[in-house]
Amino acid sequence: MNYPEAFLHLLDCFKHLPGIGAKSAERLVYHVLNMQDEYVEDFANALTALKKEIHYCEKCGNISETPVCDICANPERDHHTIMVVEKPQDVFAMEKIKEYHGLYHVLNGVVSMMDGIGIEDLNIQPLLDRLQEGGVKEVIIATNLTRDGETTALYLARLLQDQDVQVTRIAHGLPIGSNIDYADELTLIKSLEGRTKI
Amino acid sequence: MNYPEAFLHLLDCFKHLPGIGAKSAERLVYHVLNMQDEYVEDFANALTALKKEIHYCEKCGNISETPVCDICANPERDHHTIMVVEKPQDVFAMEKIKEYHGLYHVLNGVVSMMDGIGIEDLNIQPLLDRLQEGGVKEVIIATNLTRDGETTALYLARLLQDQDVQVTRIAHGLPIGSNIDYADELTLIKSLEGRTKI
Repeated sequence: MNYPEAFLHLLDCFKHLPGIGAKSAERLVYHVLNMQDEYVEDFANALTALKKEIHYCEKCGNISETPVCDICANPERDHHTIMVVEKPQDVFAMEKIKEYHGLYHVLNGVVSMMDGIGIEDLNIQPLLDRLQEGGVKEVIIATNLTRDGETTALYLARLLQDQDVQVTRIAHGLPIGSNIDYADELTLIKSLEGRTKI
Repeated sequence: MNYPEAFLHLLDCFKHLPGIGAKSAERLVYHVLNMQDEYVEDFANALTALKKEIHYCEKCGNISETPVCDICANPERDHHTIMVVEKPQDVFAMEKIKEYHGLYHVLNGVVSMMDGIGIEDLNIQPLLDRLQEGGVKEVIIATNLTRDGETTALYLARLLQDQDVQVTRIAHGLPIGSNIDYADELTLIKSLEGRTKI
């Protein structure tokens, strides 16, 4: 005897989610089976609503419920500065510290030889269009310190060198509370390269 | 700036699933956001279909798409033997070994002082009704070897002692491949109590 069809169908959906293995998926289906009907209905609606209601901002590429996101549409933000990040998650992480008041530009990916993602697959042309419009004084490249993130940063820096903007890169080095003897090599190299006068 | 409403809604649904924390839930929402529309639609349908199509077998309490499950309805199975288990998962685990050919009875829980689950909350009356119908010769109690599982087994054994059936308990002891010096006390006690002649 095998699981009923409807059980296997949902099991399969759960198994395709990242970080969920066969045993966890099974546990989740049993959990849904014991959930109240209204709650399952609500879950199903939340899934379809997400795709219907959330789009990408036509200016910066961040997720948004409106054609232009709250940040791009906010006149009180510093429209002279644009921070380029890999993913929407990075925007929300940066917003949490409440220290950055400029705009963002979300690439929605990085150049990756391994995954076959080239420059043309990234959200770069809209960035050039924004710079063309004028008014931007600084572009902060905040891709991650990974091989792919660094490649993308380098490419962007070259692409922007003829533009009339200052291009900067966020600082990399030892995080607060870390130990030098536990740090990886690349972090140590970066912390040495980026040393400042005291 | 916070996440859009539709994002937070699905995030909340994922966070309420067992074993999924805040960070995993966020990752899952982003994954859904990048999924194809048809696939998300299919996922939502699978959720609602599960609750609509899967019920509990009116005889044994196992999950089933039909009023009486495949096992209870199968005339080729041994209808003289009933194995009592805690959850539907246990039925499918037991079926995998292809060694047991009798019927099952799913309690859908165990007596638990901690969770306030009493005998009246379990699927026990239908078991007594099945015995009343006659024909059953053996009831194998296969609840887990936990405090709650043992309490339930003891209660069931007492409840069935006046019935004209043989009541047995599955064997507990050291699992295959285990080491005596790593085994917990209760398992060792059980392996000693249940020792057999060689």
